[in-house]
Amino acid sequence: MKKVSVGLLGFGTVGTGVVRLLTQEKERLEARMGCSIELKKVLVRNKNRPRKVLIDSRILTTDASDVLDDPEIDIIIELIGGVDKAYRYILRALQNKKNVVTANKDLMASYGEELLLEARKSKKDLFYEASVAGGIPILRTLTDSLAADRIVKLIGIVNGTTNYILSQMSHEGLSYEKSLQSAQSLGFAEADPTSDVEGLDAARKMVILSHLAFSIPVRMDDVKITGITDVTREDIVYAQKLGYTVKLVGVSEVNNGAIDVRVEPTLLPNGHPLASVDNENNAIYVYGSTLGETMYYGPGAGEGPTAVSVLSDLLAVIRNMNLGVTGNHIFLPRREMHNREENSIESQFFVRLHMKDEPGSFSLLTDLFKEQRISLEKLYQEPIVGKDIAEISIITHTTNKILFESSFDVLRKMDVVLNAKYYRVERG
Amino acid sequence: MKKVSVGLLGFGTVGTGVVRLLTQEKERLEARMGCSIELKKVLVRNKNRPRKVLIDSRILTTDASDVLDDPEIDIIIELIGGVDKAYRYILRALQNKKNVVTANKDLMASYGEELLLEARKSKKDLFYEASVAGGIPILRTLTDSLAADRIVKLIGIVNGTTNYILSQMSHEGLSYEKSLQSAQSLGFAEADPTSDVEGLDAARKMVILSHLAFSIPVRMDDVKITGITDVTREDIVYAQKLGYTVKLVGVSEVNNGAIDVRVEPTLLPNGHPLASVDNENNAIYVYGSTLGETMYYGPGAGEGPTAVSVLSDLLAVIRNMNLGVTGNHIFLPRREMHNREENSIESQFFVRLHMKDEPGSFSLLTDLFKEQRISLEKLYQEPIVGKDIAEISIITHTTNKILFESSFDVLRKMDVVLNAKYYRVERG
Repeated sequence: MKKVSVGLLGFGTVGTGVVRLLTQEKERLEARMGCSIELKKVLVRNKNRPRKVLIDSRILTTDASDVLDDPEIDIIIELIGGVDKAYRYILRALQNKKNVVTANKDLMASYGEELLLEARKSKKDLFYEASVAGGIPILRTLTDSLAADRIVKLIGIVNGTTNYILSQMSHEGLSYEKSLQSAQSLGFAEADPTSDVEGLDAARKMVILSHLAFSIPVRMDDVKITGITDVTREDIVYAQKLGYTVKLVGVSEVNNGAIDVRVEPTLLPNGHPLASVDNENNAIYVYGSTLGETMYYGPGAGEGPTAVSVLSDLLAVIRNMNLGVTGNHIFLPRREMHNREENSIESQFFVRLHMKDEPGSFSLLTDLFKEQRISLEKLYQEPIVGKDIAEISIITHTTNKILFESSFDVLRKMDVVLNAKYYRVERG
Repeated sequence: MKKVSVGLLGFGTVGTGVVRLLTQEKERLEARMGCSIELKKVLVRNKNRPRKVLIDSRILTTDASDVLDDPEIDIIIELIGGVDKAYRYILRALQNKKNVVTANKDLMASYGEELLLEARKSKKDLFYEASVAGGIPILRTLTDSLAADRIVKLIGIVNGTTNYILSQMSHEGLSYEKSLQSAQSLGFAEADPTSDVEGLDAARKMVILSHLAFSIPVRMDDVKITGITDVTREDIVYAQKLGYTVKLVGVSEVNNGAIDVRVEPTLLPNGHPLASVDNENNAIYVYGSTLGETMYYGPGAGEGPTAVSVLSDLLAVIRNMNLGVTGNHIFLPRREMHNREENSIESQFFVRLHMKDEPGSFSLLTDLFKEQRISLEKLYQEPIVGKDIAEISIITHTTNKILFESSFDVLRKMDVVLNAKYYRVERG
């Protein structure tokens, strides 16, 4: 039987999962691929650290060149994370004519295009299914199965940490701080949660998804990002009263050749399939111009799910190697990047405000919206007991974003308005 | 530029969609594939019938051999439906060394294995993504993306007609008959709805899915099928009172190498992602032993969605032709078929019954379940006004199916029980 040799860079959680699957499913995978799959070298930081899976300690090394420059190794799996070192390793692997599988979203969001060009030049595969939405096979779906259709919009719940936090706030009535602590204690959030809660992680995934869905080379700078740190339990409660769920979603939408990519806390109508994607799960909702709406749902992270995605890429490389066609499935952006003009963007909005509960104040509010021709779809008002203040929640009809923002600015500065905030609303 | 020639068999709804997409997206598709795609012949029943898309009438023919035996045609798309004629045409196309794309689930459920063997012999592709769940790319996901994992269970809402009918009964409070009429008037149900409402259509799709997910050659005879014709509005109402939604689902599950495939009206907990799959939409929920739970959701039928799936197969064939690797992605079952023993199957059940509202009758019921060691998870009782009858709904804990059925049989025959029925319950 033919043999394929694999080198692994990094032996943390996902690396452990990959080794576990390769060992447990060896027989089935090899029968399916028609070749034996040998794990030849593993780059680690410490050779003596105890491991959760059985592994021949002789294949462990602390020297990257033992893996990258071994002429017998056909495929490199990069799981060390980070950007600079991973970039150098992958570049060297490709230049050494090795196929590469990576789960590194930070790297692919920043240097994806460059590395993909290098892969094409070397006629080798560079696959990265695990970099977005852990176990959900969304990248291959976009490049293969949905290729026949013209995708016009993507909505993604692509960060498990923030989705867990918002789910806890919604269902358990916890504050943001308590939910974050719960996420940290369960391992869903890191000690420094900045990259997740500020929306950066989700933005990187939207960059990768936009590239594949629209063939447009979006960069991190093109994404408008707002995290969840200012979302309060009250925002969620009043959104619920109007029939909406608050989620951190990434939206990427193309209109007349220009793209708008944003990550922000957004209200989804409760009936929307994305509204019931709870806890650490992820989902990507795709609008095709002919296909209509499809959704891909599953675990967004974790040893097992991510390892399955890494392995699915590994099997795809092996299949291409067997057929002698590596380097032919590299997908590079072909269209130019044009950011959509802010003043062409329309949306519904959710406004929450506290207002002095005195005669005439409510009509000041409705007059303002009337004057600006912003019509209201839903409105909820209740008194804040004992304070002569009214709590008001509004869902507007679809309106121009710039117009809305300038009206909101006027509203915020009114004497009778004590404080006000708004979120975007996604249509059902 | 290289040219690929396509022959189309059948020019109904889906055929029209395919021609429309090939025309509208010609430039984009050809740029992506690096070759021109020519529609060379179309088999129709009547050359003079008016068409909804512009087409050169000279390529229409009523003689199948004009398409099947044209040596210049590389790929045949079969969309005539039915079994016998489609079988002969596809066999002949494969023997004539043509690649084949079909949307024919009836054919693939009955003769799939045979035709796939022929394709492998001819070193040609035979793809059928559109045969299951219209626009959802589930077949390629199962064979490619999930190949690294061991799939243990599939649950599918794979029939849009019955899902539409049950959704209408749930949300609009309509009777089965009224919902069926509504489905028929909207074109979601045929004049003779038997194949849909009796569960046969769903069963065929479960056969195809089981084959790909488990590598087991399941046949229609192996599927236990119950349709939705006996589901009443009251069943749905009382299921809702206990927090459940009634759906026609197909379940395919492997345990110790033996498989159980069934299609039947089933209760899903409201929080289950499948419970909110409404109207004519479809979804497939996949349990991977390492990956965990993923779901694939979208339109189950219709001109556009089905055409996109047909075209995604067409693009896959063209890609394989360009690389010279057709016939290498044919997926044939490799494991033996063993039906799971009925007495090894466990489930929760929903029991609905009417009981004489007289002293002691309720304890007869609880005694029976206690004696049979079937414990109850939820129970709801209300009087039927003015009738001395109690309406009782029960959700059991997980129990052995054979044991449950024999207990139900005793219950049904009790003097105090006026009528009783049960459904399977899927866990959350």
